[in-house]
Amino acid sequence: MSKPLEQLEERLGKISDLEKVSRVLSWDQQTMMPPAGSDHRADHLATLRRLAHELLIADETGSLLDELRPLEESLEADSDDAALIRVTRRDYEKAVRVPTDLRAEMTHAAAQARPVWVRAKAESNFELFLPALERNVELRRRYVDCFEGVDEPYDTLLDDFEPYTTTAEVREIFDELKTELVPLIAELRDGEVDDSFLSGDFPVERQERLAKEVVGLFGFRPGTWRLDPTEHPFASGAGVDDVRITTNYDPQTMKSFFSTMHEYGHGLYSHQLPRHLERLPIGNACSLGIHESQSRLWENLVGRSPQFLRFFYPRIQEAYPEQLSGVGLDRFVAGINRVQPSLIRIKADEVTYGMHIILRFELEQDIINGRVELRDLPRVWSEKMRDYLGVEVPDDAHGVLQDTHWASGLIGYFATYLLGSVMSVQIWEKALEDGPDLEDQVERGDFAALRGWLGEHVHAHGRKFSPQETLERATGSHIDAKPYLAYLRAKYGAGVAA
Amino acid sequence: MSKPLEQLEERLGKISDLEKVSRVLSWDQQTMMPPAGSDHRADHLATLRRLAHELLIADETGSLLDELRPLEESLEADSDDAALIRVTRRDYEKAVRVPTDLRAEMTHAAAQARPVWVRAKAESNFELFLPALERNVELRRRYVDCFEGVDEPYDTLLDDFEPYTTTAEVREIFDELKTELVPLIAELRDGEVDDSFLSGDFPVERQERLAKEVVGLFGFRPGTWRLDPTEHPFASGAGVDDVRITTNYDPQTMKSFFSTMHEYGHGLYSHQLPRHLERLPIGNACSLGIHESQSRLWENLVGRSPQFLRFFYPRIQEAYPEQLSGVGLDRFVAGINRVQPSLIRIKADEVTYGMHIILRFELEQDIINGRVELRDLPRVWSEKMRDYLGVEVPDDAHGVLQDTHWASGLIGYFATYLLGSVMSVQIWEKALEDGPDLEDQVERGDFAALRGWLGEHVHAHGRKFSPQETLERATGSHIDAKPYLAYLRAKYGAGVAA
Repeated sequence: MSKPLEQLEERLGKISDLEKVSRVLSWDQQTMMPPAGSDHRADHLATLRRLAHELLIADETGSLLDELRPLEESLEADSDDAALIRVTRRDYEKAVRVPTDLRAEMTHAAAQARPVWVRAKAESNFELFLPALERNVELRRRYVDCFEGVDEPYDTLLDDFEPYTTTAEVREIFDELKTELVPLIAELRDGEVDDSFLSGDFPVERQERLAKEVVGLFGFRPGTWRLDPTEHPFASGAGVDDVRITTNYDPQTMKSFFSTMHEYGHGLYSHQLPRHLERLPIGNACSLGIHESQSRLWENLVGRSPQFLRFFYPRIQEAYPEQLSGVGLDRFVAGINRVQPSLIRIKADEVTYGMHIILRFELEQDIINGRVELRDLPRVWSEKMRDYLGVEVPDDAHGVLQDTHWASGLIGYFATYLLGSVMSVQIWEKALEDGPDLEDQVERGDFAALRGWLGEHVHAHGRKFSPQETLERATGSHIDAKPYLAYLRAKYGAGVAA
Repeated sequence: MSKPLEQLEERLGKISDLEKVSRVLSWDQQTMMPPAGSDHRADHLATLRRLAHELLIADETGSLLDELRPLEESLEADSDDAALIRVTRRDYEKAVRVPTDLRAEMTHAAAQARPVWVRAKAESNFELFLPALERNVELRRRYVDCFEGVDEPYDTLLDDFEPYTTTAEVREIFDELKTELVPLIAELRDGEVDDSFLSGDFPVERQERLAKEVVGLFGFRPGTWRLDPTEHPFASGAGVDDVRITTNYDPQTMKSFFSTMHEYGHGLYSHQLPRHLERLPIGNACSLGIHESQSRLWENLVGRSPQFLRFFYPRIQEAYPEQLSGVGLDRFVAGINRVQPSLIRIKADEVTYGMHIILRFELEQDIINGRVELRDLPRVWSEKMRDYLGVEVPDDAHGVLQDTHWASGLIGYFATYLLGSVMSVQIWEKALEDGPDLEDQVERGDFAALRGWLGEHVHAHGRKFSPQETLERATGSHIDAKPYLAYLRAKYGAGVAA
């Protein structure tokens, strides 16, 4: 190994360690930390982020990258070393463009906006949140101004979550989806599907047992995972051998079961990232979109499928006999897959979910391009909800204030949810093509081959390639709305039955 | 505030954050981490330590300290700023004396020795551990050689755990203790005290409930503490508002009750450190000896006292009716305070405990001064156990291999346990003198005044002063074996009764 490469790897190893430590601290904050510890935690996370950032933007990083250019050019583009230099150079060049002060202001403004948003949402009062949002948007615009060479300003924001992906590319996919989804939703809404049995009495201890059972069944290496309760479910961890997923137990629904399978998908991705690249940036996950393709695959393609539920529904019935003993498999599968437009994104079914995202994707572009006044957002939100989903927004809490992302300064993030859903179907269908026995295995509760296929074809690439190159290496195809639409039509258009 | 002082504080704030993050990670490792995560964790902790060390030994730190000398000299010695500069200078000067390579070798050798020690202890085979011990001792000797101006080599090691404290000072105290303890033990041993009821059936859930109850009763600010199970109890945390104590539940004994009170004492110290010095080195605990004085005070002076147990024993009986319903208060108090020489330090009673420490203190000096061959340690250990405690060591696991300290490279640590016990009595008696009502309060289960007194007279000083100056500020006296011996004689010489 060349001396500068060794030095670069040492530097990147420290950065990786600091990032993983931050993840463990965030996990701790949301699962274990005594509540009064939040001020200490803010100091500690700020110091870790600052040190990691300083290590990345240091002049030495730039000099090493310059020194390594001939090596990079002499290597195969898909070799680990070439990918490492390429990805690091991109991270470095993005990071050095943003003045340290601006970055600090963005972090600070987001930290200040979050409690304001919590209060505004509780009081359902957008006006209260408006000044904080204005400040965050203004800082994001200044952030966008740091970059040049993009086709449209929103490209810069999107790139932070879905790198190498342009607004135009996403718009094309989303426009295609919108054209099909709006009429499909109109057709499917207000169907005769009964899902009343999904509300009632779901004791938390039994939810917990079932969540652990399904995660254990899907599978992981022994001694490497945790599952803990939290307010807002997420997956985190400190490395391939320390994976931590969380879920939220609501005693009146069994939603934790589905959200646990979702987080399992995220967790498995982290678990099967390339071990030999563990402390390097190319050992991370590729993008939020690819990440979401994994969680959606396990939650929807596996977890809500008739095949899986033929195997597992008896266990669910056993856990909640009072709720489900009189509910047959067909009724259960139909109930959990019921399509009904509603106000809240995170409660949406698979078909309507996409329109919640498209709405936000469109609004965010209008915000950044100054095509909408921020004070008009509640009105514009309501109009789009009426047009896309045919629902009336009763108040800000159930409309524009529902999600935390904008309060955290996260603009450009939402699109990845839907990109992930679209890609999940492409990946699933390629896995089926490569292993025609896959659905039978799912029906037998055997997930080893699926884990292995995902590990080999998706997870093993880490962050070596762009999301689209990663998808193409896994499936042979670029992102494509058609398989996703065909899947939705087949699953819902033909009625849902086991 | 002067500009260089501000710069120094900013630097020290980062170091403090990194240290506290390391503590949370260590807590996590011993309570929450999936076991397979230990390799990641070793990388992460090493990076945090290295970054903290680099920040401390950087030339900038030295320059700032030089610049600040006139300011320091112009300030009252007990002002926060003077103490900060003084303490930082001492830390800096100690840190820069040790070559980075040696420090890395010490960390590495300790990490390698630990699993070897675990195996050697399991097989009760000192020979197996010997090479690892030799390596650790050799590195400690090289460490000692980095320092000059000490009276004896062991001073350097002791100073890392009990700063500003010389071997000669400790030897004087310990010799006085030894002269009294050996005959006292001979007199008290094999007494007719029944403690058979302390072994049996103590369901873990009830131990857990009782541990939480006693910690809640002793008291802390709401939303700031956690209590979790672990293998080897310890206290940790991320700051004054994030205190984490741990305990070990053995279903056959109620030892968790006493060890929880012990860790409460450590936790309360962290909880009441000066908030305005939170991110500075002088906001830390003073020394391991002072720390131990706090844990011993709550465990022994409060927790094992007839006064406290008159209040709390009914709750204990209620928790374990099968074990204790027929055991009166007097018998219980006598049983938990039974004196009986035994092999294992951490199971020793208050009277014999000191001799376990004195044995290690003497052996460690002999090791560092080359007065004992390491291969002879099992023999020398056995001889001292016979002389001091009158017990026969059956094998290495119950002798020289029992403690983990030497495997972790920690030489110079043990003395602080006994120094803390001695000081705990001085502190307790001064608190009694200042508040004659204290024992009545303990008997009423009211600990607010005691917490307040300790906070004001001990905890509030943080690490501004040496351990002895801190003790003198709290009690008006230098460390003194006499009150401790008088306490033991009064408690045990006169027989134990409620």
